[in-house]
Amino acid sequence: MADPAQPIGPDGPRARVVVAGATGYAGALAAQLVWNHPSLELAEITSRTEAGTRLNEIYPRYDVPLALKELQVADLEDVEVGIVAYPHAAAAPVVAEMRGMGMVVVDLSADFRLDDIPTYEEYYGGHSEPELLDGAVYGLPEIEREAVKQSSLIANPGCYPTASILALAPLAEAGLIEDVVIDAKSGVSGAGRSGGEATGFTHVTENVFPYKPAGHRHRPEILEKLNKLAPEGSKRIETFTFVPHLVPVDQGELVSCYVKTAAGLTQEDLDSMYEARYADEPFVTVRNSPPGMRDVRGTNQCHIQALAGDDRIIVFGAIDNLWKGSASQAIQNLNLTLGLDEGMGIS
Amino acid sequence: MADPAQPIGPDGPRARVVVAGATGYAGALAAQLVWNHPSLELAEITSRTEAGTRLNEIYPRYDVPLALKELQVADLEDVEVGIVAYPHAAAAPVVAEMRGMGMVVVDLSADFRLDDIPTYEEYYGGHSEPELLDGAVYGLPEIEREAVKQSSLIANPGCYPTASILALAPLAEAGLIEDVVIDAKSGVSGAGRSGGEATGFTHVTENVFPYKPAGHRHRPEILEKLNKLAPEGSKRIETFTFVPHLVPVDQGELVSCYVKTAAGLTQEDLDSMYEARYADEPFVTVRNSPPGMRDVRGTNQCHIQALAGDDRIIVFGAIDNLWKGSASQAIQNLNLTLGLDEGMGIS
Amino acid sequence: MADPAQPIGPDGPRARVVVAGATGYAGALAAQLVWNHPSLELAEITSRTEAGTRLNEIYPRYDVPLALKELQVADLEDVEVGIVAYPHAAAAPVVAEMRGMGMVVVDLSADFRLDDIPTYEEYYGGHSEPELLDGAVYGLPEIEREAVKQSSLIANPGCYPTASILALAPLAEAGLIEDVVIDAKSGVSGAGRSGGEATGFTHVTENVFPYKPAGHRHRPEILEKLNKLAPEGSKRIETFTFVPHLVPVDQGELVSCYVKTAAGLTQEDLDSMYEARYADEPFVTVRNSPPGMRDVRGTNQCHIQALAGDDRIIVFGAIDNLWKGSASQAIQNLNLTLGLDEGMGIS
Amino acid sequence: MADPAQPIGPDGPRARVVVAGATGYAGALAAQLVWNHPSLELAEITSRTEAGTRLNEIYPRYDVPLALKELQVADLEDVEVGIVAYPHAAAAPVVAEMRGMGMVVVDLSADFRLDDIPTYEEYYGGHSEPELLDGAVYGLPEIEREAVKQSSLIANPGCYPTASILALAPLAEAGLIEDVVIDAKSGVSGAGRSGGEATGFTHVTENVFPYKPAGHRHRPEILEKLNKLAPEGSKRIETFTFVPHLVPVDQGELVSCYVKTAAGLTQEDLDSMYEARYADEPFVTVRNSPPGMRDVRGTNQCHIQALAGDDRIIVFGAIDNLWKGSASQAIQNLNLTLGLDEGMGIS
Repeated sequence: MADPAQPIGPDGPRARVVVAGATGYAGALAAQLVWNHPSLELAEITSRTEAGTRLNEIYPRYDVPLALKELQVADLEDVEVGIVAYPHAAAAPVVAEMRGMGMVVVDLSADFRLDDIPTYEEYYGGHSEPELLDGAVYGLPEIEREAVKQSSLIANPGCYPTASILALAPLAEAGLIEDVVIDAKSGVSGAGRSGGEATGFTHVTENVFPYKPAGHRHRPEILEKLNKLAPEGSKRIETFTFVPHLVPVDQGELVSCYVKTAAGLTQEDLDSMYEARYADEPFVTVRNSPPGMRDVRGTNQCHIQALAGDDRIIVFGAIDNLWKGSASQAIQNLNLTLGLDEGMGIS
Repeated sequence: MADPAQPIGPDGPRARVVVAGATGYAGALAAQLVWNHPSLELAEITSRTEAGTRLNEIYPRYDVPLALKELQVADLEDVEVGIVAYPHAAAAPVVAEMRGMGMVVVDLSADFRLDDIPTYEEYYGGHSEPELLDGAVYGLPEIEREAVKQSSLIANPGCYPTASILALAPLAEAGLIEDVVIDAKSGVSGAGRSGGEATGFTHVTENVFPYKPAGHRHRPEILEKLNKLAPEGSKRIETFTFVPHLVPVDQGELVSCYVKTAAGLTQEDLDSMYEARYADEPFVTVRNSPPGMRDVRGTNQCHIQALAGDDRIIVFGAIDNLWKGSASQAIQNLNLTLGLDEGMGIS
Repeated sequence: MADPAQPIGPDGPRARVVVAGATGYAGALAAQLVWNHPSLELAEITSRTEAGTRLNEIYPRYDVPLALKELQVADLEDVEVGIVAYPHAAAAPVVAEMRGMGMVVVDLSADFRLDDIPTYEEYYGGHSEPELLDGAVYGLPEIEREAVKQSSLIANPGCYPTASILALAPLAEAGLIEDVVIDAKSGVSGAGRSGGEATGFTHVTENVFPYKPAGHRHRPEILEKLNKLAPEGSKRIETFTFVPHLVPVDQGELVSCYVKTAAGLTQEDLDSMYEARYADEPFVTVRNSPPGMRDVRGTNQCHIQALAGDDRIIVFGAIDNLWKGSASQAIQNLNLTLGLDEGMGIS
Repeated sequence: MADPAQPIGPDGPRARVVVAGATGYAGALAAQLVWNHPSLELAEITSRTEAGTRLNEIYPRYDVPLALKELQVADLEDVEVGIVAYPHAAAAPVVAEMRGMGMVVVDLSADFRLDDIPTYEEYYGGHSEPELLDGAVYGLPEIEREAVKQSSLIANPGCYPTASILALAPLAEAGLIEDVVIDAKSGVSGAGRSGGEATGFTHVTENVFPYKPAGHRHRPEILEKLNKLAPEGSKRIETFTFVPHLVPVDQGELVSCYVKTAAGLTQEDLDSMYEARYADEPFVTVRNSPPGMRDVRGTNQCHIQALAGDDRIIVFGAIDNLWKGSASQAIQNLNLTLGLDEGMGIS
């Protein structure tokens, strides 16, 4: 573990990090970001199926020359931090083992995101480590910054909740959302590297289509978190529709949120609400023009526009699903919990 | 004019057609469809700026070898049909001149689509031929088939209204829509050939963004037509939001419609409503899987799925914006008004 | 078998066709083309892994409503024609069985393309039906039209040889090619439906890369066929380089051919050679502007430009790899061998 | 001007930089790279047509908040460095004026790249500042590093020469190239922001086509530079063909070079030549797998593979046309001439 007398930072020792599951898109990017981070050291990268290969052979666009190993948590005695990029359900036992070693863990899976175990089990099956849930913090720094700083187990949200919650937080925190439709458009990398025909080029190019349009598993997560933001005594969201679509884009996520509220908000009201809420946030930009996926590609930024539209409030939020929607947000969380500058290595 | 004693058709003479404005995407496709149509003859193609060039030089993917001319309506004495692919407002005087010659006209512009002149003028400026509006029929054959058959001036709807109205007609005709959000995704060809930076490849690729998210000029058209479908005495749509997005696709249009209704419709209700409504429509396919743009590319088809979704009815509609959303629908209308088989030349 | 007294054709009975392997990209398109063909009847479609499913479920963009079956050649007594869309080596035994039933066969695989068995075996492994090779005709109609008309076993060439041989035939037939580089760019559908990570959207988009740049198995096929075109006594091609590249395109193929020749050919010489050679070919267009993949997408056309370039003759050839490079060329061959109009169902 | 007693660098003052023509793709990226560079200060950005607008309004993906001004070189007294991103011919007078003020200039145009004035004038028209040519250095650091360090006027090469020369330099420096074909594939951003129909999304998507296949103006530049690399007394390149193609990619460039040489080079020979030549180059990676555009996107890297192919040596070179092919290479050159670490701000 890091010597508390010598704090991690530009002048102290680097925190040693393992990325478990570094061959998926999010894990590989996390490894690359750690590799170039001034206060982190990439101690080890692991893979369940490609051990022995160097990461820059699999991803020539990254410059991590380390070879992948098989994960042996017990051997990671001098590693302080684990980033776990495992599939849902497979992550929880690895997280538990790392926490048992005293490591700080950022988990990219859904395993510790939901407060409500029955909801988790409805969508993901049985949960192997429910006792760890209490200590886990939902790692959306713009919402839970202080809690993240104090936590050693951070459940890193995925791309849909990140974009949706950031787009809607100012309205949710004012208790103003009664009814919302979230129409999400996601790039293909969000479906992971395993791919298959549905994410093949010939299926995706010149195509846009909805997928899992009813009962998507990110729906309860977004709803739970938005309702938690509402002030005591305010009404809960009554009507909530979330529909994702696949678009022929590699990296990118755009949510178009259609909100009904009893409050008669003008454009000026919206402008001041959003600007006030995000004025000090380094990674949220409130705009008065429609944000596009390209505007945030390869960055930890979320671009937002809130509009008093025809018969509804319309809020657009754009992120890069692999960056702010996954790997760079993991680094942002790590920076916070390690006491580093929040934007180090991701600005 | 065609000799009424010798009806147009496979065994009669071909109707002679002029396509005015044949260098834009929709006009060029209309010319190509006429060129290959067994009962139409492409008598002339015109262009305001590229007269003298052959169409297959501009579009090597089409095989129309005719040279473009400048439009002189007065010279078109032996031409029975005009397809007008002019910009809004520029179309109306050409349509009037052609009607004055006794020609059957299909107009691809917005000039004769709206019943309500003040609404037209709010979005498009002054209307030069208001007296022709009464005789114009809104050319959505699945809605107005009998009227199209009787009309000599057909206002061909654009891609957004076509997809939206077909997706929502079964609900609208039952008077069940109280509140609807239409989130539309459109390919780039919908913006026309003139292009500019906003439709340049480097701006569009790896990008998705909303455009004109409030006050889009197709909103009143869709709303007017949906409300016309509702039965006498039923409530009108109270809350109506329409937001288009540009996606990195050449040809294609997907509308995702989110409907609230007091009626508690089950999936079975929806299935039977939609199947009954479209059972006899050759160009509408009701599906039980999410439709994609690729499924209808290069066809006159509209693919629809209606879902009893989370807290709302969700209806997806996919068309090719240049085909069913413009040029092939013009041919479908022409077939109807000329007494030909409705699918001739577009199946 | 077809009754010889009642010839196949618009007024005779339709020839009954089975497409074996109809779920791959080429097989599915072949099935669709047969389905809409005025003188062919799609009797059966088969699949080794997806029997029981309707083809229009797998490919909603096609309208073939037949269910796939498992192939039982012995049961195909009243089927006159087989289109075999099987992988290399797997095709040969099926072709043999069909020929044994007296069927006319168009084989889309490489199994009967090469005259030279040792070359075949070097690239594809052992050949199970070498005795059928003698009767097989290389199905490039622009080169072997008369032989195709007489043959009952047609080896349909793939996209690289089709584009390359058509681009170079006028020079090869004049014995003028000494040295040639073929730099080929291919759309992703050429790699087949099985896909895998290499053809996943996230790997292909915003990317261009060579694949199998040395020793590609289409090299000996192209070389063998070009040398066969050279007149008796003329020199053979001495130096021959063929390198394919994958481009982020669904359907399309462009070959850029760089030729050295001792003959001092001017642009005028080239123009007259190419125009004379292809003047009567309905599916080859000689152009004086650079052809693009889009110009031929969804057609049986090959667009060619020959240029007296800097220090070399440069010839570009563009086709749709699934159409002229596979499925529509199969129909063109079938039309010829059945005595139908060559362009029926593919124009 | 910078105080020579206080050298520029991490601990000294930052060099003040103007980017003239910062609204084109290359100029904008150069401004962004200067903005984030630890030893450079972005003093001013200029535009001939968009003065008054902030750069991050035009390019929301960049974070430069400065407003564009009209260029007044005479007012730039305290600016030490000019990056000129003007069109060919328009750049030369601006460069001259800046040099007259004592500024170090990196010019992104072709105006000072060619040694041979008649060749320049054949392709670009009259040259307004021929007397400056002698002092200009061709800014390809891997070839001219020491000269760049000594120069105050650096002609930054474009994407085609950068990729081609780096791919071929080891062979050219050994005097081994007799005959070469360069088949280049370029992303659309290489055509500049002005765009027009040829670079519109609908023209480029699902398309690949050659452009200016004969007499391209980068041909003489590449040929001149390659011949300069050959040792005294060795033969010059006799046969040289260069053909660019446009591919549906935003940023990226791949050159496929086909070389004939009398020397019988084996794969081992090539490997040792290329590895030795580039072993110490931080921005060139020699690979034994085919490089793709994606591997170098958004980096200053050039990835190269040299192959003893069928009948020829084949060398592939991949760069990002806007980075190593323009803006980041300009920063690499600036770092060298200012005595900074070569990779500062671009690694």
